[in-house]
Amino acid sequence: MEPGGVNATIISCGDELVTGQCVDTNSAWLSMRLLSDGIVVHEHITVGDNIVRISQSIKRALAQSELVIITGGLGPTADDVTREAFAEAIGSCLEVSSEAGRQVTKFFERLHRAMPESNRRQMLIPRGCRVLRNEHGTAPGIGYESGSVHAFALPGVPGEMKPMFEEHIAPIICGRSGGGTMIHARLLCMGISEAVLGERLSDLMARGRNPSVGTTASHAVLSVRIVSHGTSAEEAQALLDHDIRDVRRRLGEVVFGEGEDTLQLAVANLLFAQRKTVSTAESCTGGLIAKCLTDVPGSSRYFLRGYVTYSNEAKMELLGVSEQTLATHGAVSEESAREMVAGCRTHANSDLAISMTGIAGPDGGSPEKPIGLVYIGLADKTDVQVRKVLLGDHLGREETRDRACKNVLNMLRLHLLGAASHAH
Amino acid sequence: MEPGGVNATIISCGDELVTGQCVDTNSAWLSMRLLSDGIVVHEHITVGDNIVRISQSIKRALAQSELVIITGGLGPTADDVTREAFAEAIGSCLEVSSEAGRQVTKFFERLHRAMPESNRRQMLIPRGCRVLRNEHGTAPGIGYESGSVHAFALPGVPGEMKPMFEEHIAPIICGRSGGGTMIHARLLCMGISEAVLGERLSDLMARGRNPSVGTTASHAVLSVRIVSHGTSAEEAQALLDHDIRDVRRRLGEVVFGEGEDTLQLAVANLLFAQRKTVSTAESCTGGLIAKCLTDVPGSSRYFLRGYVTYSNEAKMELLGVSEQTLATHGAVSEESAREMVAGCRTHANSDLAISMTGIAGPDGGSPEKPIGLVYIGLADKTDVQVRKVLLGDHLGREETRDRACKNVLNMLRLHLLGAASHAH
Repeated sequence: MEPGGVNATIISCGDELVTGQCVDTNSAWLSMRLLSDGIVVHEHITVGDNIVRISQSIKRALAQSELVIITGGLGPTADDVTREAFAEAIGSCLEVSSEAGRQVTKFFERLHRAMPESNRRQMLIPRGCRVLRNEHGTAPGIGYESGSVHAFALPGVPGEMKPMFEEHIAPIICGRSGGGTMIHARLLCMGISEAVLGERLSDLMARGRNPSVGTTASHAVLSVRIVSHGTSAEEAQALLDHDIRDVRRRLGEVVFGEGEDTLQLAVANLLFAQRKTVSTAESCTGGLIAKCLTDVPGSSRYFLRGYVTYSNEAKMELLGVSEQTLATHGAVSEESAREMVAGCRTHANSDLAISMTGIAGPDGGSPEKPIGLVYIGLADKTDVQVRKVLLGDHLGREETRDRACKNVLNMLRLHLLGAASHAH
Repeated sequence: MEPGGVNATIISCGDELVTGQCVDTNSAWLSMRLLSDGIVVHEHITVGDNIVRISQSIKRALAQSELVIITGGLGPTADDVTREAFAEAIGSCLEVSSEAGRQVTKFFERLHRAMPESNRRQMLIPRGCRVLRNEHGTAPGIGYESGSVHAFALPGVPGEMKPMFEEHIAPIICGRSGGGTMIHARLLCMGISEAVLGERLSDLMARGRNPSVGTTASHAVLSVRIVSHGTSAEEAQALLDHDIRDVRRRLGEVVFGEGEDTLQLAVANLLFAQRKTVSTAESCTGGLIAKCLTDVPGSSRYFLRGYVTYSNEAKMELLGVSEQTLATHGAVSEESAREMVAGCRTHANSDLAISMTGIAGPDGGSPEKPIGLVYIGLADKTDVQVRKVLLGDHLGREETRDRACKNVLNMLRLHLLGAASHAH
C-alpha cells in the first residue's frame, strides 16, 4: 500500500462528528480523490470544535505527512475555531484579510442579502497563508505552504468542499505523487466464504506486494480490492489489468461485477443480453426480490410481475400451490417452493421465475425449521430447481432477508451464465 | 459539551476506510452511544491495515483517554492485523486462546459448516486480555484493562460490533461518566417541510438553551434532536421529557415515532391495534412498499399479499384494471391508480389496500408526466382515495422510489390515525 511518494493526513473538525450526530463522508471522498492522483492517505483524524485539539491534530499531521487537509469549523459562529487552531499550529496569528473580506462581501451581494455581523469572523486568515475562494458559500478556505509541506483548510459542507478541492488543491498535488501513479479496482464476489477467498488469493495478498490485494466482506458480498502503483500511468494500469485478469481467472463465475456494480445489475445485464423475462414469487422476503430486480433502469423490459404471497390463501389462489402441500409440508418447504415457482412462471408466462420461502425471524423458528432456513426456487420452461439454504439464526430479520434475496438473485445469475455458456 | 468525567478515543482500522472505499459509520454510532451514557468522545482516528500505524494509534489513544474502542481488522485474512497491533501497543504477545478457539469452532458448528484453516488466526488473543464473545460472526473481540483505563477491539461489521458493544462494554462503562449526565432523544416527522418545522420550534432552537434542539432532514424524514444536560440523571430526564412533550404538542400527527422507529413500524402498530389487514398494488416501486410493510416482525398478522404489476397485462389480469383505462389515461394516471387499489382490496379481501403508480426515471418522463410524478391510492371497504404527488425530477431512481413509498405509507398512517380518532 505504500510505494513511497507523498502521503496525506485528513482532519475533520466538528462537534456534530465527534458526538456521532453526523457521519463524516468528506474524509472518504478526499481519500478516494487523492488516491486517484497517487497520494496515499495514512490517517483520518476527527476532533470536536476545540482549539487545542484541532491545533494539536494539525501539528501532528504536519509532522507525519506532506499534505494535510482540514475540513469543517470555518463557519461564522463562535464554535467555528479552525481558523484560530490553524494559526496556532503553524505558529502564526490571525489577521483580517482584505481578499477574504472582498469574497465574503461579494457572496452576500450576489444573494442580494445584507451580511450578518457574525460573518466578519470569516475574513480572518492566519498571517502568511493564502485565501482560497469559495464559489458556493461564505467561508473562504486557507492555504499554507512550508518547504515540501502543504496544508489546506476547507469548509465542511460537501457541496463547498469538493469544488474548492478541485480548484485549489488538485492543481498543486497533480504530479507531486512521488513520480508515481496509483490506481485501484474492486472485484465483487458472491457465493464464496471470505476464508476460502483468502486462501485462493493468499500469494497475491502477501504484504508489500505491488499491486496490493485485500478482501472485505459486507452483507454477503465479498470485495477484492486491488491497488497498483507504477512509475507511469501505463505501468500502473498494466499491473492492475494483470491482477484483475488473474483474480478473475482464479475465482471464475464467483465474480459478478466491479466497482459499484450490484448483483441485480449483473442479473439485469444477462437478462437484457438474452432477451429473457422473469417473474417472482416471494413469501419471507415480502417484495424485496421484486424491488431489487426493478432497481435497474429499463427493468420493465425483463420484469413482468411479482407475487408477494404472504398468506397461504395468496399462495394457493395466485400461484396454485395445493392446500395438500401446505398442510403436509408447510409453507416453508421444498415442495411449496417448487409449486410456488412453477405456478409463478406459468401464470406470469415469463421465461424464468424465481421463488423464495423461508423463516426470516425473529419468531417462527423451530428445531426442524430454524430461523434462517430458506428454500430458493428457479423455473425455466423445461425445469424447476429448488435449493435449501441455511443462513444461520444470527443475522436478524433485515440481514436474513437481504441475504436470502442475494442468494436467489445469484442462483438466477448462475443459471443465466450457464445458459450463455451452453449457447456457445 | 464536556461535563468532565471519562473521555474516549475511537479507532477504526481498515484499508477500505482510509482509501475512501467505505465510509466509517461505526465511529459515529459508538460516539452517539457513548454520549448517551455521558462519555464524551474526544477523537476518532482511522488508519489502514498496518500494524505500526494501528499500534501507534492505540498507544496514543491509551495516553489520552480512559476508554479506547477499536473496530475492524479482526477478520481471518492476512490483512487483518489489529490483534497483532493491539498486542504490540500494550507490550504483550499473541497466544492461542482456548476460549476463543471454542467460540470460533462453535460458530461453525452452529452453521453446520467446516471451519476453513484461516479462521485459526481468530483464536489468537493478546496475552493478559479477555476474549469477548461474538454471537453474530466468527471474530471474537478483545478486552484489556489497566488501572482505570479500558481498551476494547471489536469487529468492523456493524451487525457484530453493536451487539458486542452492548454485551461487553456497556455494562463496564455504565456509571463511570463522572459529573453530569447527557441524554438525548429524536422525534421523527413526515409530511412537513424543514423550514416550517424550524419556524414552529424556533424558540426551542435558540443557541445555548438546555436542552438543545436541532433538526435534520434525511430521505424525506425530518428528525428533531433534543439533547439535555443535567447534574443528575433525573434532572436531565425531566428536562428531556418536558421538551419531548412540548415538541409533540406543537407538531401533532406529523410526528410518527422516536429514536430508531420507522414509518412502517408506526403503520404496523396502528394495524396491530386496530386488527386490520392490508394488501398492496405497486407499479413503479416494484415491491418496495410490500417489502417495507413486511420489515416488521409479525407482519403476517396484517399483510396478506402484494401485487407487483409491472406490465400492463399484470395490471389488467391481477387487479382488473380495464384495458380502456390504460389506453385512454395510461398506466400512470389517477384513473389507473384508482382501479389498481380498488381491485387490489377486492381481490385480496383485505380491510385496506394501497397502490402506487408513477414515473421513477431516469427514462420515461414527459412534459405532461414528468419524472417524479406518482399517484398514490388508498382503499377501505367504503371508499377509494387517490392523491397526485410531484416528487420532482432531481432525486434519482432510488430516492424517488423511496420517497414515493414513504408518501403512501404516510397516507396509510394518517388514515389509520383518523380511523382511531373517529372511534373515540
